[in-house]
Amino acid sequence: MGEKYVIGLDYGTLSCRAVLACCGTGEIIADAVRPYEHQVMDRALPDGRTELSRNWALQHPGDYLEALEVTVKGVLEQSAVSREEVIGIGVDFTSCTLLPVDRQGRPLCLKPEYESRPHAYVKLWKHHAAQYEADKINRVLAKGDYREKYKIDEKVSSELLLPKAMQILDEDPELYREADQLLEAGDWLTRTLTGSGKRSASTAGYKAWWQEGRGYPEKGFYRAFDERLENFVEEKLPGEICPVDQAVGYLNQEWARRLGLCAGIAVAPVIIDSHAGVPGSGVLEKGQMMLVVGTSSVALALSDKPYYGKGIVGTVKNAIIPGYYALESGIAAVGDALEWFVTSCVPASCHEQARKEGRNIHDFLSRRAAELKPGESPVMALDWLGGNKTPYVDGSLMGGFYGITLQTRPEELYRALIEATAFGTRRIVESMEESGTKVCEIITSGGISKKNPFFMQIYADVLGMKLRVAENIQTAALGSAIYAAVAAGREKGGYDTLAQAIRAMTRVEEPRYYPIKENQEAYSRLYEKYKEMAAFFSNWRA
Amino acid sequence: MGEKYVIGLDYGTLSCRAVLACCGTGEIIADAVRPYEHQVMDRALPDGRTELSRNWALQHPGDYLEALEVTVKGVLEQSAVSREEVIGIGVDFTSCTLLPVDRQGRPLCLKPEYESRPHAYVKLWKHHAAQYEADKINRVLAKGDYREKYKIDEKVSSELLLPKAMQILDEDPELYREADQLLEAGDWLTRTLTGSGKRSASTAGYKAWWQEGRGYPEKGFYRAFDERLENFVEEKLPGEICPVDQAVGYLNQEWARRLGLCAGIAVAPVIIDSHAGVPGSGVLEKGQMMLVVGTSSVALALSDKPYYGKGIVGTVKNAIIPGYYALESGIAAVGDALEWFVTSCVPASCHEQARKEGRNIHDFLSRRAAELKPGESPVMALDWLGGNKTPYVDGSLMGGFYGITLQTRPEELYRALIEATAFGTRRIVESMEESGTKVCEIITSGGISKKNPFFMQIYADVLGMKLRVAENIQTAALGSAIYAAVAAGREKGGYDTLAQAIRAMTRVEEPRYYPIKENQEAYSRLYEKYKEMAAFFSNWRA
Repeated sequence: MGEKYVIGLDYGTLSCRAVLACCGTGEIIADAVRPYEHQVMDRALPDGRTELSRNWALQHPGDYLEALEVTVKGVLEQSAVSREEVIGIGVDFTSCTLLPVDRQGRPLCLKPEYESRPHAYVKLWKHHAAQYEADKINRVLAKGDYREKYKIDEKVSSELLLPKAMQILDEDPELYREADQLLEAGDWLTRTLTGSGKRSASTAGYKAWWQEGRGYPEKGFYRAFDERLENFVEEKLPGEICPVDQAVGYLNQEWARRLGLCAGIAVAPVIIDSHAGVPGSGVLEKGQMMLVVGTSSVALALSDKPYYGKGIVGTVKNAIIPGYYALESGIAAVGDALEWFVTSCVPASCHEQARKEGRNIHDFLSRRAAELKPGESPVMALDWLGGNKTPYVDGSLMGGFYGITLQTRPEELYRALIEATAFGTRRIVESMEESGTKVCEIITSGGISKKNPFFMQIYADVLGMKLRVAENIQTAALGSAIYAAVAAGREKGGYDTLAQAIRAMTRVEEPRYYPIKENQEAYSRLYEKYKEMAAFFSNWRA
Repeated sequence: MGEKYVIGLDYGTLSCRAVLACCGTGEIIADAVRPYEHQVMDRALPDGRTELSRNWALQHPGDYLEALEVTVKGVLEQSAVSREEVIGIGVDFTSCTLLPVDRQGRPLCLKPEYESRPHAYVKLWKHHAAQYEADKINRVLAKGDYREKYKIDEKVSSELLLPKAMQILDEDPELYREADQLLEAGDWLTRTLTGSGKRSASTAGYKAWWQEGRGYPEKGFYRAFDERLENFVEEKLPGEICPVDQAVGYLNQEWARRLGLCAGIAVAPVIIDSHAGVPGSGVLEKGQMMLVVGTSSVALALSDKPYYGKGIVGTVKNAIIPGYYALESGIAAVGDALEWFVTSCVPASCHEQARKEGRNIHDFLSRRAAELKPGESPVMALDWLGGNKTPYVDGSLMGGFYGITLQTRPEELYRALIEATAFGTRRIVESMEESGTKVCEIITSGGISKKNPFFMQIYADVLGMKLRVAENIQTAALGSAIYAAVAAGREKGGYDTLAQAIRAMTRVEEPRYYPIKENQEAYSRLYEKYKEMAAFFSNWRA
């Protein structure tokens, strides 16, 4: 049997990426990206007439299919791999990204009679207009024991499935009735490709409180929020739940033709986009942590015990790597915070000097900041420009700086901001360890991990751990390809288990960043000061 | 008797200003400024060879005389007032600004044999190289009861007279021996003009622990620091102390000729520069406060009780306005903090937009910030970019910002910084009131009070008091002229008492800034948050 290939699709907020990966080595031999035509609709529907209220964020399902065709054909053309050599497709998707469909699985928004009904469209993960419903859910959950019984977060976010569904019911009950199902966009995509009505254990577990063995919450739970929801699961969430290491279905004739692939190849169940990076980073054992450092950061560590608390969510088993829970947290603004800083706080003189030196502003500030020793500047920052998850679970917390004098230079503030995100990450690791999961190894990925050695060295020094960097920058897309190889199975040229696939298909560089002893010691002292400052501001409201 | 005039000289850190004021009304009819040729010498002596260590700050006494001639002749020429109409000269000066002189009162640095000896020059108030001596003094004072007995600050600053004198003794004992006296530069100036060996009660009281009735501390006090200092007062600080409302002496022939004035006119004793603004602002009664808002701020309120604590210094009686103590505090960085902000933290886009609108950057940011209501932006700041005086008495405290998100705009930070200095000022007023002196009226002066109504309105709202603005912007120079009119006396066309002179010679505008009720309430709430944040950071060291 010759070399086989799998396709990994990574559906992000603004675009879809496809990679074609070699089953044997995981090497990515082709890569294509397609932005969504309608991007995020937060002002009006495509009809141009129907305006949207504040906090809405919709997408158009046609964009997903268009991007699918373009990117899959793209990687096939680039690679000159023949259709017979491709044995599976895997998909990761933002979540909960929800849409109503009819009995044939057709999105209601694509039917002319619904084209001006906002609730007919896809509610993107960051659609925050269901806050009224989230508040109602939280009020109800404050009484009774449902939280404990179903392991529900202390504060249900409007980003989950139930608030979004309830918003449709509240605001457009007719459309709610007309909807045959409410589907995660990723589940809708695999259904489209295969005809399979199965849903993924990933999205059901993380966004809809489904649990292996027990299923969804009981009827009384849903009725507690609204009588009309009593049969919510049967009516709107039908379909068997597919484990992440099995095929959700097999590519149908129509889409085989449209994509230029063979009908019958395995399609893996959708995985939440940030989770697909776990196998894509090579993380497969207890105590290993994936740390994606980009605009925000995501920290995901495998554990054999469930845990929930201090903003760390880890009560769903088997939904990323079979056999494990995944303890998840992160920092809402990392690259975004640095971007805010260079846009809003860096004087023209720095930008000019950077231009003269032929560097981008981040590189320029990093070089200047690198001349400082840890603690040499008195400036310290709080990394809460997008709120705090761990340990305070409070999105309304904000960032700050202390230690400013008339001599303070921009690079001191810049460095302090990086250090603050590193302290915030140490806080996450520490909290995970307090819950009983020792973090033994960190594998980093994301844009910053490849581009900014100064930033990464601070992380190694603050965390006091050596950092490895995932070799492939597209860890999420590679992760999807890995799930595809497992869905295809060994017989077809794939793998029997996820662990085997991850071992074969990922490469992690030798540790690139080692903590420097004296920096590590200096930062350990500063970390205690950071925690004191954090404790103060967690209780202080301006 | 026709209209009489007095000359007020204001010796600042970088230049000398002379004003010619009408005795009857205080109207300033001429004004001249001369920068010092050598400015502040902090790297090398005029010989260009002798380098200075860190924290040194020297001046050249020849610059004072040169500026004197130029500015006095300048105001006489401008005004076409005849020499016979000028009845007195008053001087305010930075302090403690100290120089060694020989028996003839000649500065040692002007003698060729000493021109390369750093200690022969004038030590400017901000010469901070006597920290070793200040530390030694503080160690000694920590034991025993001298602090209480002589009402000495909790932390003796290196800016006072004794540490500066001790530094000469420690580092150049031969020069110390050769010095016939150590003189405040202001005292040296009046001695030069009059031949009088008297020193001013202002500088002796505030910078050398002299007290009316009791005099300087006893011999044992000085001996406690160094045996060689036992006779310090007799040896280095001879001369009677002159009350601030008397003449220190009368203009001698030589300087009458050089300045184009009549010999024999009264010269007032020197007043510390920031204190001269008190009469110059029209402050003359208990409970009135002068608030100078410029690069830094100075708050000085008259009281009938001495007080020392929380960074408020007020144990010297009669040294500004006879009959009163003056409670003094201030904020080290106000205009300087805003200047730091626009230089180091404001992006090019704001500067460009300001340029397009034809505004300076402060005006531009103030206009944008004025669109916000108090508390509308979550950003709050700490005003400690130059340390904190009241209530924490800690120069090592630093500034900060909290409440930053990815949406934070420069004008929010700018407004927060202004608000923080206003909160800091409220803290000063509150602390003075806790000591038993109710602040009834605030008269503001200084550059910002005239130029930035947005800034001043925030102060009125935060302080919850109406603010009056001194009509004349040169309150210090006018104050010196007022002392001159009192030194001259009523017979010559001046005044018998300082109160009479102040009433006649100052104008205060009708209240220009009234607190707006809803802003005042919002700020009262925020002020409590500010105090919580201040309390936290006063105890937190990075």
